[in-house]
Amino acid sequence: EKYRARKRLPFKLGLQIVKVVLITIQLSLFATSRLAHVSFLENTQFSLDHLFILGWDVTREVNVYPPGAGPLAVYSQQSYFETLDFAVNAYHDLDNLTVSGIGYTDDTVPPVRLCLNGYRRARVFPANLSYAFDAHVRQRCLDLRPTPVEIQKHNFSTRAFLGKHDFNVSFVALTRTTLSFALNAVRLKEMIPANEPDCYRLQAALVLENGGQDGRMLVRMNVESHLKPCNGNLETSGDGAPLKVFFTIISLLVIAVCISSFAMCMRSMYRAQLLRIETVSLLHEHFEYDLTYEEQLRFLNLWYVLIIINDGLIVFASLIHIQLDIDLIPSPIGVETWNLCAVVLGAGNLLVWVGMLRYFSFFKSYNVLILTVKSAMPSVLRFSVCATISYAGFVFCGWLVLAPYHLKFRTISKTSETLFSLMNGDDMFATFAQVWPRSSMIYWFSKLYIYVFIFFFIYVVISLMISIIMDSYETIKAFYRDGFPMSPLDE
Amino acid sequence: EKYRARKRLPFKLGLQIVKVVLITIQLSLFATSRLAHVSFLENTQFSLDHLFILGWDVTREVNVYPPGAGPLAVYSQQSYFETLDFAVNAYHDLDNLTVSGIGYTDDTVPPVRLCLNGYRRARVFPANLSYAFDAHVRQRCLDLRPTPVEIQKHNFSTRAFLGKHDFNVSFVALTRTTLSFALNAVRLKEMIPANEPDCYRLQAALVLENGGQDGRMLVRMNVESHLKPCNGNLETSGDGAPLKVFFTIISLLVIAVCISSFAMCMRSMYRAQLLRIETVSLLHEHFEYDLTYEEQLRFLNLWYVLIIINDGLIVFASLIHIQLDIDLIPSPIGVETWNLCAVVLGAGNLLVWVGMLRYFSFFKSYNVLILTVKSAMPSVLRFSVCATISYAGFVFCGWLVLAPYHLKFRTISKTSETLFSLMNGDDMFATFAQVWPRSSMIYWFSKLYIYVFIFFFIYVVISLMISIIMDSYETIKAFYRDGFPMSPLDE
Amino acid sequence: EKYRARKRLPFKLGLQIVKVVLITIQLSLFATSRLAHVSFLENTQFSLDHLFILGWDVTREVNVYPPGAGPLAVYSQQSYFETLDFAVNAYHDLDNLTVSGIGYTDDTVPPVRLCLNGYRRARVFPANLSYAFDAHVRQRCLDLRPTPVEIQKHNFSTRAFLGKHDFNVSFVALTRTTLSFALNAVRLKEMIPANEPDCYRLQAALVLENGGQDGRMLVRMNVESHLKPCNGNLETSGDGAPLKVFFTIISLLVIAVCISSFAMCMRSMYRAQLLRIETVSLLHEHFEYDLTYEEQLRFLNLWYVLIIINDGLIVFASLIHIQLDIDLIPSPIGVETWNLCAVVLGAGNLLVWVGMLRYFSFFKSYNVLILTVKSAMPSVLRFSVCATISYAGFVFCGWLVLAPYHLKFRTISKTSETLFSLMNGDDMFATFAQVWPRSSMIYWFSKLYIYVFIFFFIYVVISLMISIIMDSYETIKAFYRDGFPMSPLDE
Amino acid sequence: EKYRARKRLPFKLGLQIVKVVLITIQLSLFATSRLAHVSFLENTQFSLDHLFILGWDVTREVNVYPPGAGPLAVYSQQSYFETLDFAVNAYHDLDNLTVSGIGYTDDTVPPVRLCLNGYRRARVFPANLSYAFDAHVRQRCLDLRPTPVEIQKHNFSTRAFLGKHDFNVSFVALTRTTLSFALNAVRLKEMIPANEPDCYRLQAALVLENGGQDGRMLVRMNVESHLKPCNGNLETSGDGAPLKVFFTIISLLVIAVCISSFAMCMRSMYRAQLLRIETVSLLHEHFEYDLTYEEQLRFLNLWYVLIIINDGLIVFASLIHIQLDIDLIPSPIGVETWNLCAVVLGAGNLLVWVGMLRYFSFFKSYNVLILTVKSAMPSVLRFSVCATISYAGFVFCGWLVLAPYHLKFRTISKTSETLFSLMNGDDMFATFAQVWPRSSMIYWFSKLYIYVFIFFFIYVVISLMISIIMDSYETIKAFYRDGFPMSPLDE
Repeated sequence: EKYRARKRLPFKLGLQIVKVVLITIQLSLFATSRLAHVSFLENTQFSLDHLFILGWDVTREVNVYPPGAGPLAVYSQQSYFETLDFAVNAYHDLDNLTVSGIGYTDDTVPPVRLCLNGYRRARVFPANLSYAFDAHVRQRCLDLRPTPVEIQKHNFSTRAFLGKHDFNVSFVALTRTTLSFALNAVRLKEMIPANEPDCYRLQAALVLENGGQDGRMLVRMNVESHLKPCNGNLETSGDGAPLKVFFTIISLLVIAVCISSFAMCMRSMYRAQLLRIETVSLLHEHFEYDLTYEEQLRFLNLWYVLIIINDGLIVFASLIHIQLDIDLIPSPIGVETWNLCAVVLGAGNLLVWVGMLRYFSFFKSYNVLILTVKSAMPSVLRFSVCATISYAGFVFCGWLVLAPYHLKFRTISKTSETLFSLMNGDDMFATFAQVWPRSSMIYWFSKLYIYVFIFFFIYVVISLMISIIMDSYETIKAFYRDGFPMSPLDE
Repeated sequence: EKYRARKRLPFKLGLQIVKVVLITIQLSLFATSRLAHVSFLENTQFSLDHLFILGWDVTREVNVYPPGAGPLAVYSQQSYFETLDFAVNAYHDLDNLTVSGIGYTDDTVPPVRLCLNGYRRARVFPANLSYAFDAHVRQRCLDLRPTPVEIQKHNFSTRAFLGKHDFNVSFVALTRTTLSFALNAVRLKEMIPANEPDCYRLQAALVLENGGQDGRMLVRMNVESHLKPCNGNLETSGDGAPLKVFFTIISLLVIAVCISSFAMCMRSMYRAQLLRIETVSLLHEHFEYDLTYEEQLRFLNLWYVLIIINDGLIVFASLIHIQLDIDLIPSPIGVETWNLCAVVLGAGNLLVWVGMLRYFSFFKSYNVLILTVKSAMPSVLRFSVCATISYAGFVFCGWLVLAPYHLKFRTISKTSETLFSLMNGDDMFATFAQVWPRSSMIYWFSKLYIYVFIFFFIYVVISLMISIIMDSYETIKAFYRDGFPMSPLDE
Repeated sequence: EKYRARKRLPFKLGLQIVKVVLITIQLSLFATSRLAHVSFLENTQFSLDHLFILGWDVTREVNVYPPGAGPLAVYSQQSYFETLDFAVNAYHDLDNLTVSGIGYTDDTVPPVRLCLNGYRRARVFPANLSYAFDAHVRQRCLDLRPTPVEIQKHNFSTRAFLGKHDFNVSFVALTRTTLSFALNAVRLKEMIPANEPDCYRLQAALVLENGGQDGRMLVRMNVESHLKPCNGNLETSGDGAPLKVFFTIISLLVIAVCISSFAMCMRSMYRAQLLRIETVSLLHEHFEYDLTYEEQLRFLNLWYVLIIINDGLIVFASLIHIQLDIDLIPSPIGVETWNLCAVVLGAGNLLVWVGMLRYFSFFKSYNVLILTVKSAMPSVLRFSVCATISYAGFVFCGWLVLAPYHLKFRTISKTSETLFSLMNGDDMFATFAQVWPRSSMIYWFSKLYIYVFIFFFIYVVISLMISIIMDSYETIKAFYRDGFPMSPLDE
Repeated sequence: EKYRARKRLPFKLGLQIVKVVLITIQLSLFATSRLAHVSFLENTQFSLDHLFILGWDVTREVNVYPPGAGPLAVYSQQSYFETLDFAVNAYHDLDNLTVSGIGYTDDTVPPVRLCLNGYRRARVFPANLSYAFDAHVRQRCLDLRPTPVEIQKHNFSTRAFLGKHDFNVSFVALTRTTLSFALNAVRLKEMIPANEPDCYRLQAALVLENGGQDGRMLVRMNVESHLKPCNGNLETSGDGAPLKVFFTIISLLVIAVCISSFAMCMRSMYRAQLLRIETVSLLHEHFEYDLTYEEQLRFLNLWYVLIIINDGLIVFASLIHIQLDIDLIPSPIGVETWNLCAVVLGAGNLLVWVGMLRYFSFFKSYNVLILTVKSAMPSVLRFSVCATISYAGFVFCGWLVLAPYHLKFRTISKTSETLFSLMNGDDMFATFAQVWPRSSMIYWFSKLYIYVFIFFFIYVVISLMISIIMDSYETIKAFYRDGFPMSPLDE
């Protein structure tokens, strides 16, 4: 049996190796161009933040843990209006500010639009703790049009403008302020000779969030970008087309290889099924032995299933890739399309690599390891179920109690990440230390909770996990020494 | 025996599953509303910090480890008075500053009250190292009332005002300065339609702590908040009542389920006790065998005890929850009540999840794991006692020697957390690096201390822990293979 | 034998428990008062930093890893003089600045002294890369005496003053600038009623270090503090004496307990030696068997040695403690005396706790663990020797290559800490990431070096360590089951 | 056999110990002088950064992870010109700024040179998303010569100067701006008496990178330094020569020892080969037994190979060292030469230490450990191959998907470091937390990816690794107990 398997190997193995190489090339090319594309949009976002947000700071350009500071916010009426003024003045001075190909969407500079979301009526009288409140929410908008003098002197005042237009701002009634404007961007690229410029429409909105009514208005800027058709004349020595053609050829090659790999695996699986049916009837007739469901399952080679799945994923990703490159079906392409392609291609590539392990299982000394993993899996999974149930208890409990007092327990998902990290010995002291010590009951509860969790999970659960794996390893070693147990089928 | 257990299972198991589902729903609802509530108060605290504390900084709004900076403090007489002036001016300008529903407690703006705690008499003459000191502490207070002109120009000067009122500040005699004022807040909520506004009384105190007489006055602001009855007319499309009713129904359902679960467990335990008494007398009469205490204990099912405890906790938490929602017994509700409910509910929920493991112990392949934990526990606990004793030695030693020179050893509790984290491989280099190298003896002692601790605890103690768990696992595996040892009772 | 041991136990065990309790009380009292004392000096240092160092920043008050910023330094001639001016002006305005009991050492404000260390002659001509250089170092000093007008206006200019006194500053010849002045501090304490004030002489020196001649002068302030006798009249309700008496009584009790414990251990050891000599002669005469050195060593109970050592340490520490409290032998007490006492007391306390483990070794189930540690020790140590030799190779190699390009490899001691942390899974990514990528050879070498080190030490060395411990555990378990191997002596 | 080996030991062992000591001395001396040298250049870089880069900040002087802030950049036309002006003004005011021996390269201050790299023609019309673009890149340069008045007032304006010279800056066409100038530095050293001063030419370039055309111009300063011959008269008490002589003597001693060690190892290996040839013919003739390749390989002592390699490395490093000290072959010595010497010497030293382990293998109790490592190696390596293949899959997948959204996945090398650290339990929570949550698909993919990776690698792969090592240890222990298996050769 093994001999026949080995005779069939060389061609299939060769195909898989070609597949790995091709896919890794495709992946690298795609990753590089996606990184360039997404980085451009990220950096554009940062440069708009610098130009339009008053008090923006370089420390806000990195997303690190632990965070260095609280969120960007305005806390007083004066800074509220200053923030708005700053953005409006920057918008009208854009041509003198920007160091890149960003500009207005129209030659007659379109005005910035200010929208206030708020309650229809909301008055509060803190002195006697009373209010008059109509919770219906409405939106009021107004175009902000500075006078030429204000534009020239950069001293447009939103407060004065709103006063002039009888547009009063009641802060207790206000839930969100949005200052929106659009920009066009033309991006000239130098990286690869004669890459055509890209054109984008950037839809920007400076948002001041006041929904919590807690005296703190969070400030952020949303920028949405869409690729737009570009026109222009390009005088250049080379030509970008060959590159795209090269990309597309690689993708087509990958598709071809994957389809043939897919076909071969299907054929093998089909044959295995035929063999199964034959065996079943043979055993039934001659030995009166009916194969159990589990024994029949052994005819299904999971490696082939794995290869079929990864072939499917990669063909799908390659098709998206081709669409991204040569835009076959005209459609607006956003960042999400790139992300989808990346996720599918990444998952496919991961499975291709894992599938390579199959060819190691033909060597005895490598096989022992794969067999160990395979034999340990059921115990590990069963154990994981038990562990997960206690884990879930800790997650819910931690989230409920610590969410308002601890950064790392703010959401269920974060709580789970925190506990998972603790369980693997990470960031333990910081987790202890980052409780706001506002309530001593919570403070001491958090200590106890973390100690118990760590003690139980590191010393008991993980040790048991190691025991299980070791036990399987011993078993497999013993099988090698003493022979594998045989099912009736093998006999 | 097992068969009978299984026949009884379905209903009890169903009840437990219903319980888990209901409690998790209740927990999620409660966690969400508590998070919103506590976050509002936290954010209000931050916005007051921004408005009233001179030199407040966004980096102080996160509680992270390692800390980014030393504490907020004033170091000179001038900044002392500037800090006071800033707060007083902000208070009188509140209506033009705030972007939320915060206001004075009275229409005639009540004055800010300045209180100085200090020694009755304290003069120091550094030049000849002498002093005249009466350590009796007294408090002197004064209302700060700026003139209308000062209010308008925001230039109230505390120093001048005190001078005018013959209220001298002697810094060496001063141990604490408190600037206290009260504010009312009306909070309009938009999240759920027609949630009624909440009203709070905020008791704020800007405190400058000078007890250490070390030239550094720590500045902080304490804000205490209390819910107050609110009156006002609410014009709105929906109605908040159904939501509260829904919350209350969930709580009542949970109570009902828990009480029935409690009843069933009590019944089972009662029956087990009857059985025990019967068995004892039976064995005594027929076999002249007296059950040992330990054998009798086997009639007490610890799973039932666990379920009874969690039922008790959850019923208690649900009652508090109902009180929080519909305010049955009129009482001032502070944050501590919410916290208490969260802790009790969280602990109950954790135990409910852990209790679910019981139902896995009916399957043979899961049971091996639970049995391992059970059989390893005595050895693990005995070992923990030995480990804890050496651990205590290290904690006391570390705290004594390193407390003044190392952030992470400042208190006994912190020292224990530090060592516990080190033992699990966390934050090791940082612990080495964060010693202030002021004294070389301490510096080298700290290195030696950490090396020895880590070497001993990671390589010896933890390895032994793993050995113990593995040993138990092997034992249980052998029992499964060779049969469990039987006590006379089983026979 | 065991029976007799147990009969002797109760009294000794009681004594040890009393010892642990007393020492822990003493330790806690001492730790608290030391923390207060050292914190006062630390905080005074920080407040002087704020008052006298231009550009001092709260982020410099914490000693954290990773550091947030480079060192405090001046980079231009202007900021050099501004730094000096700032300190001199602050000194002369001290009475209006300070918020604590700090003052001049004399009523006639003593002048600040400026000292310049530098080469006798050093001129450089960068244009033609030549120099005239006499490497003899000399120090020149000058008292800085601002005019009353300058003092009043806080605008003393060092540059002008030096110019007026023909005291030229040549930056290339300058290696260190020191601005020194002394202050007296009287500290009033409120924590414990009627604690007497402490008086200190603070010798401060603002140092600008230019030894590297690299364009960056490091700025720091050294403050040395000495307790001085204080005089003054103290009017107070209570009296501080009883507290000190209480402290001293505790210390004396501890000394008494330790001496009796010491005496008992000596007696036991003496008896064991007598027994040894008898046994030796007995065996020699009757069985013609000579005890080996190792067998004779078994008569030396290492637990007693441990107890004797910790008794010695604690008595020594208690004597220093008494001296600190009641100042028996008049002497200037610096922070180092406190530190010495803390280190000795801490080490003693640690050993006392470890010594407690002895009493657990009388119980069979605890003993197995202690025996495992004991039996594993020789293998662990032997293994550690091998591991340490390879470790030393890595330390030297890492330090040599990475010292200038990596914060964590700057000194041999830091390198060792870094590798030790890596080996335990700490701060790995940061170690990879913190190489300055100035030289690509170094950059890639560092990656390779860290990968190899981690792979070898975590996967091979640590796994082996666990194997060794587990092996010992198995051995001891087998001994318990099958009986301990007997030496001829036991027979 | 062993006996003869031991008789030969003493001399060889002595030689190796002498070698370790000498090399470690040499390494320490070299490391110290290299650290001083490289630190000087680093600090000079920092001081030039402070003097010439507008907005430079001490937080940029440390290279830490996680980074505290985004990169230094300019975002507006105004700050672009201010950055240039600042550098030009600082350059012309250098003599009044610097506190070290830095100066112009010529007495007639050479002008600063401004170079603009950019597209030959590039105009964009964002309003109608069109462009005219010629992607040919060209460089235009201009010397900036401020007038004496501008120099005196430090108010040189680049914008005005360029306007005057008809040198227009089109930001969309601009890809890089370089402001370059040269400085000379004379470094006086005080550390060791009468060390001769060093002279450097510093080639500095302030670069503003605009290649991405994303509105953000990265600012950095490149400083290249070269040692230059220095002339000057040195009046000093001592003389630097002996020190260099001492260094050179150490290096020569090391070379001598290494060559003799090399010779002895070669002789031993030669003899072993002779023995092998004899054995082969003997066995062939008398027993008709042909030695297999593997059996013949046992005559090659890998320890000798190791020693020969480290001797080679150290001799090579020592020769470079001598060249660095006494400059035998005149050549420009850059930092890279120092780095090369450090890497070679470091690697050699590491191997020398590892080679010391050989002498432990002569003791039985140490040998067990070395044998375990040796016997586990094949399994560990085989296992590593399998693990590496799945690891590669994860690396490519993670890099592709997360590169644009996660700092730690930006390059393949960083991704591998991240995963390697995660696998060892480091920086887990931070890795979860640092995803920019811009795309929810990516956000959730990242969580899943990290969970799966950690689960698989920590719980399965690492546990298996431990199992393998333990298994080898057990095997070797059994060999010691039961005798080693013998090959025909041994028989």
